[in-house]
Amino acid sequence: MPLISPVIVDLKFIPEEVDAALQGAFPGREVINLADPVHEGRDLSGIDYAVVWKSAPDLFSRAPDLKVVFSGGAGVDHVLTLPGLPDVPLVRFVDRTLTTRMSEWVVMQCLMHLRQHRAYEALARMHEWRDLSQPEAADVTVGIMGMGVLGQDAARKLAVMGFKVVGWSRTKRVVEDIETYDAAGLDTFLDRSDFLVGLLPLTPETTGIFNRGLFAKLSRKGPFGAPVFINAGRGGSQVEADILACLDDGTLAAVSLDVFEREPLSPESPFWTMPNVYVTPHVAASSDVKALFVHVEEQIARFENGLPLQHVVDKVAGY
Amino acid sequence: MPLISPVIVDLKFIPEEVDAALQGAFPGREVINLADPVHEGRDLSGIDYAVVWKSAPDLFSRAPDLKVVFSGGAGVDHVLTLPGLPDVPLVRFVDRTLTTRMSEWVVMQCLMHLRQHRAYEALARMHEWRDLSQPEAADVTVGIMGMGVLGQDAARKLAVMGFKVVGWSRTKRVVEDIETYDAAGLDTFLDRSDFLVGLLPLTPETTGIFNRGLFAKLSRKGPFGAPVFINAGRGGSQVEADILACLDDGTLAAVSLDVFEREPLSPESPFWTMPNVYVTPHVAASSDVKALFVHVEEQIARFENGLPLQHVVDKVAGY
Ligand SMILES: NC(=O)c1ccc[n+]([C@@H]2O[C@H](COP(=O)([O-])OP(=O)(O)OC[C@H]3O[C@@H](n4cnc5c(N)ncnc54)[C@H](OP(=O)(O)O)[C@@H]3O)[C@@H](O)[C@H]2O)c1
Ligand SMILES: NC(=O)c1ccc[n+]([C@@H]2O[C@H](COP(=O)([O-])OP(=O)(O)OC[C@H]3O[C@@H](n4cnc5c(N)ncnc54)[C@H](OP(=O)(O)O)[C@@H]3O)[C@@H](O)[C@H]2O)c1
Repeated sequence: MPLISPVIVDLKFIPEEVDAALQGAFPGREVINLADPVHEGRDLSGIDYAVVWKSAPDLFSRAPDLKVVFSGGAGVDHVLTLPGLPDVPLVRFVDRTLTTRMSEWVVMQCLMHLRQHRAYEALARMHEWRDLSQPEAADVTVGIMGMGVLGQDAARKLAVMGFKVVGWSRTKRVVEDIETYDAAGLDTFLDRSDFLVGLLPLTPETTGIFNRGLFAKLSRKGPFGAPVFINAGRGGSQVEADILACLDDGTLAAVSLDVFEREPLSPESPFWTMPNVYVTPHVAASSDVKALFVHVEEQIARFENGLPLQHVVDKVAGY
Repeated sequence: MPLISPVIVDLKFIPEEVDAALQGAFPGREVINLADPVHEGRDLSGIDYAVVWKSAPDLFSRAPDLKVVFSGGAGVDHVLTLPGLPDVPLVRFVDRTLTTRMSEWVVMQCLMHLRQHRAYEALARMHEWRDLSQPEAADVTVGIMGMGVLGQDAARKLAVMGFKVVGWSRTKRVVEDIETYDAAGLDTFLDRSDFLVGLLPLTPETTGIFNRGLFAKLSRKGPFGAPVFINAGRGGSQVEADILACLDDGTLAAVSLDVFEREPLSPESPFWTMPNVYVTPHVAASSDVKALFVHVEEQIARFENGLPLQHVVDKVAGY
């Protein structure tokens, strides 16, 4: 009988949700949940698999024999920047629930801006019954930067809601009924976008991409006069000082941010309470932990049966 | 040359939007916009058409010769209750933009409840970075009461967003991929609904239908434990004292109300600022005034060419 390697679980998620999802997960295989103090200082050598989200920097020195590393989320920048990442496959999490949740968040943010939710909340606080001139979704073009798994699903759902949608990615993607642009088409794409949605991975190329220079190229022909920026990719792609300055001088009308340069967002940040800013604490598409473990089990089974792993990250491209 | 009848316009909308939409509307036909003081006391006899939204009660005595009455919105309760309604066709407004706008509002409200928007806003006010356990749309069944033009479009879009959707109407409607119930299936329908969306017309049968007895039959098996009530039909269908009491004792978790028993909502109403209540001032699907006049022009052309009018209301059913 072959030795069944344990699986290391190191997920900075809601601990109760991880515990609940581990019930019945990985049948026949030991689970080393590093959140459990019982494993403190445990020797992790000889172990094949780790499922990680924001691990401590010593993970790979403690577990030097990993054969596959699984990201607990769709993004892998948190793994790629860990010291000592072994030269083994890195598998990211792609899952229906994750995609659906992201589109819920993106569509909700676009609708709240379109439907002037904050303005109506302000009227309600003053007990004032007054209707505002109301553009419809078809009057707004939403540009999505990052037309991968998440961007394409959000694009499709925004289009169903009536928005005009355009997409941008490194290579040109063909998506039904959506006009798409490749890297070279960036300026044309920006000029068309009244609302800009960021669904990019964090890589050296996308670091700081959402800056004043880019915001200044966005459309000002939309019904609200100035553009809206919505980011649920990674905070490292945005220059927050520029966002603040652009909100201040009217280059941007409003923003929705789920991700930040430094997380958790500092309690001192002005973003928390600005009237034209929606803040959520990196929860746009939290991984469904049960679904994550099912995905990891499936990939381990493929690996042990000699089948190719799926959703393997290109470490050079960085996503 | 036949005499071209003027058209009376009596719309309690944003006056500037009506004026703008009237530019170029009804070519070759006089428009009597009652919002213009110049028409005060004018003799309206002999006039064939009126487009109305919340007219003064003397409209039909002032204009006794109308051949067609057009409602400025999808609902007609505001016309049916006017004294002296002549026995002529009453045409309601059905239009893509109106339908789309209503679905924007309904989907936004469902997403804000699903995504715990108010809870995240409260955390933001405290500058607190914390993630809440997050159900996904597929965990929630949205029940729609009123599966007409608006209910069916909202149902389809909620389903695309991932919600489970069930529908209820007087007669059973067949809607692709949506389970529907007829009047007799009400209790089963309510027992399945975690979120309840009201898109009913106001008729004698639907007056006061959203009351404690009905709320008590809603599902409590959803992820938030207690049901959410969302109404964009008519305020006369809801018993506001019951809504307040049900929010107070937990029969309801939260509500979104675009319509009220008395509009404008009184500045004294507690609804304005309750933490689990979203209020909008009857703007879920404001009529696009340009589109309204195009629709009225089309129907007048049909009428004058001997073709049957479309979207004629059944005055006995009341919608
Ligand atoms: N906030 C949250 O809760 C949350 C949750 C999950 C994921 N995320 C973030 O969302 C990101 C996207 O996820 P995904 O599953 O959609 O990833 P994906 O399928 O890998 O798609 C990434 C997209 O970004 C494009 N892209 C990458 N680098 C680019 C560049 N330099 N210039 C132009 N386009 C570039 C890719 O272009 P090509 O099509 O040409 O490859 C692709 O279209 C993740 O990496 C993660 O950071 C956030
Ligand atoms: N808040 C806003 O901004 C706004 C804007 C526009 C409209 N509205 C309201 O929305 C309402 C619906 O508009 P619509 O265009 O969808 O109307 P519609 O096409 O006439 O549909 C009405 C639906 O309600 C059902 N219904 C009516 N009486 C019923 C009863 N007693 N029991 C069960 N079901 C009943 C009908 O059943 P059947 O299918 O069997 O006929 C139908 O499914 C309008 O009447 C208006 O009051 C509000």
